Amino acid sequence: MSLSSTKSISVQKVEKSRIGQVDFDNLTFGATFSDHMFECDYKDGEWQNPTIKPYGNISISPAAKVFHYGQAVFEGMKAYKDDNGKIWLFRPEQNFLRINKSSKRMAIPEFPREIFFEALEQLVKLDKEWVRPGMGNSLYIRPFAMASQVGVSASPSTEYKFMILMSPAQAYYTGDVRVEIAEHYSRSANGGVGAAKAAGNYGAQFYPTNLAREKGFQQVIWTDASDHKYLEEAGTMNVFFRVNDTLLTAPISDRILDGVTRKSIIALAKNDNIKVEERPVLVSEIVEAAKNGSLKEIFGAGTAAVISPVSAFSYKDTVYEIDKQEDSYAAQFKKELLDIQYNRSEDPFNWRYEII
Amino acid sequence: MSLSSTKSISVQKVEKSRIGQVDFDNLTFGATFSDHMFECDYKDGEWQNPTIKPYGNISISPAAKVFHYGQAVFEGMKAYKDDNGKIWLFRPEQNFLRINKSSKRMAIPEFPREIFFEALEQLVKLDKEWVRPGMGNSLYIRPFAMASQVGVSASPSTEYKFMILMSPAQAYYTGDVRVEIAEHYSRSANGGVGAAKAAGNYGAQFYPTNLAREKGFQQVIWTDASDHKYLEEAGTMNVFFRVNDTLLTAPISDRILDGVTRKSIIALAKNDNIKVEERPVLVSEIVEAAKNGSLKEIFGAGTAAVISPVSAFSYKDTVYEIDKQEDSYAAQFKKELLDIQYNRSEDPFNWRYEII
Repeated sequence: MSLSSTKSISVQKVEKSRIGQVDFDNLTFGATFSDHMFECDYKDGEWQNPTIKPYGNISISPAAKVFHYGQAVFEGMKAYKDDNGKIWLFRPEQNFLRINKSSKRMAIPEFPREIFFEALEQLVKLDKEWVRPGMGNSLYIRPFAMASQVGVSASPSTEYKFMILMSPAQAYYTGDVRVEIAEHYSRSANGGVGAAKAAGNYGAQFYPTNLAREKGFQQVIWTDASDHKYLEEAGTMNVFFRVNDTLLTAPISDRILDGVTRKSIIALAKNDNIKVEERPVLVSEIVEAAKNGSLKEIFGAGTAAVISPVSAFSYKDTVYEIDKQEDSYAAQFKKELLDIQYNRSEDPFNWRYEII
Repeated sequence: MSLSSTKSISVQKVEKSRIGQVDFDNLTFGATFSDHMFECDYKDGEWQNPTIKPYGNISISPAAKVFHYGQAVFEGMKAYKDDNGKIWLFRPEQNFLRINKSSKRMAIPEFPREIFFEALEQLVKLDKEWVRPGMGNSLYIRPFAMASQVGVSASPSTEYKFMILMSPAQAYYTGDVRVEIAEHYSRSANGGVGAAKAAGNYGAQFYPTNLAREKGFQQVIWTDASDHKYLEEAGTMNVFFRVNDTLLTAPISDRILDGVTRKSIIALAKNDNIKVEERPVLVSEIVEAAKNGSLKEIFGAGTAAVISPVSAFSYKDTVYEIDKQEDSYAAQFKKELLDIQYNRSEDPFNWRYEII
């Protein structure tokens, strides 16, 4: 992979790394950033001046459209270090395709493939010491694009910034989570932007999630906005239900994010001869399954948390506890995923992407 | 109105005004900013350091949550100069109440009333020369709040910025607009954030609006996300329909913005003995009214555009032209509103707010 000379990435290295100041055993997710970041501007109809530079503040107009109209999209990825010190990404092609899909829905110009991959490779190589060895450790990678044109009129920006930040991470969630099934609030509309990783989708969840937290639940399971009959996503993750030995999850639609972890789990399940049904999942069937004992597991799936088992859910003020499962699918898929991500197993699907 | 000493606004004035460089007869809406802006930070659980300073870039981390999670809200207001050089705002209390309502939905801490009004007054007084006389001229005022905490984890920010920018404006739209009634895309969901002036609501409209523009329509009339049966908003405005001599508009809900211009028009209409129905408006009844000739007018209503008459709408690939109305309601309400805003008439509702 090479870049034409006009698009080659200029690199400004830090004078002194900050890595010595970081306590890698006590990281808050997404709060610490590696030495370098990537920045590229869209102006005059093209992406230009791709630059790797020291992580730090940007100077931007308070009238930049991102602050006013939320024209912004992002991705979440991770770099993993294996036991031999080699560094891998996991299915970065999926993130590349998805950020451009998200951008299209948000009227943001698509980002060029070669700059995306070249930036990722150079950035991770430069900050390779920030990818710590050991299962569960990773370097979380956050590409994002946002509207930078000055102007408080509600129309698409003519200028954008595409940036990549990197943040060393341990596990995202600790322990099992208790969730509340949404009966009033919703995450996305038919014909809306729920399938995009659009910034505004996330901020819109904070208030309903706070309300759930006040009642003792860590996350909300979102239901369809029309009737709250169908189960859609869990917090910021896709959600799976195991009823007896069948795995259920909502189908991709313009309300559901096409999650990389979600599609990987579906592939693993099929490979493991586990029956998977991608179809609308009724709240009522899951409540019924909880009552009759056939509901074995619920878990969220996403890059940050990998797999997040749900230990209880609340619906119409009744709490349904889910017994811990011996040989749970959640644990099985998590192990299979991590083994592939950390190069501890074969990679039958060709998901690993070697950086160094 | 006075501020306690701990909250008093510090003022840093520009050394030299930029006003001489501005061509007030050729303004692009929202692209030129006055000399000063207001900035206040939320940290450690309180709004602090309210400051008026020269308009200019801010230094902010690219990991600030606003860029990633769209946790941001805004308002739109205008200052008007009357024929005697006095400056007025229009119903600023409504904007104050609404930005805090929007903030609550977006899990942003509410902003204190006394700082809001003190900031507005001081800022407009300081930049009073930027409020140009003459009907249609105004100083557009953009208060907004956004998440400034550094961190790429999807949870509410612990730090925010509240800012006020001001931009000299002429009329927002010129001429009548042709609109397309949405049949696939949507603006907001039940239980979503459509009633908030949340940043992400606007960016989400750009792509469907672009598609409409490619077909020759300037705006989209949004319909309900569930069935696209009901007419909700027009572009970034509330929308009114005149059928015979009755005015119809969608009722306020968690999908519909509680517009200041909207509620002012309803008050004016009632005062003028015009029948107003705030109720769900069916697409089918408006199409039928267009066919049988009882549809007299459609117009959008919002602070930026005031009133924006619609000259035609498209539904299911049929275009319905709306004949220009003698003595139109749109023109009548626009005149009544402008006369109040520019202090050319009595103010029976006590809507004007004197600045200087």
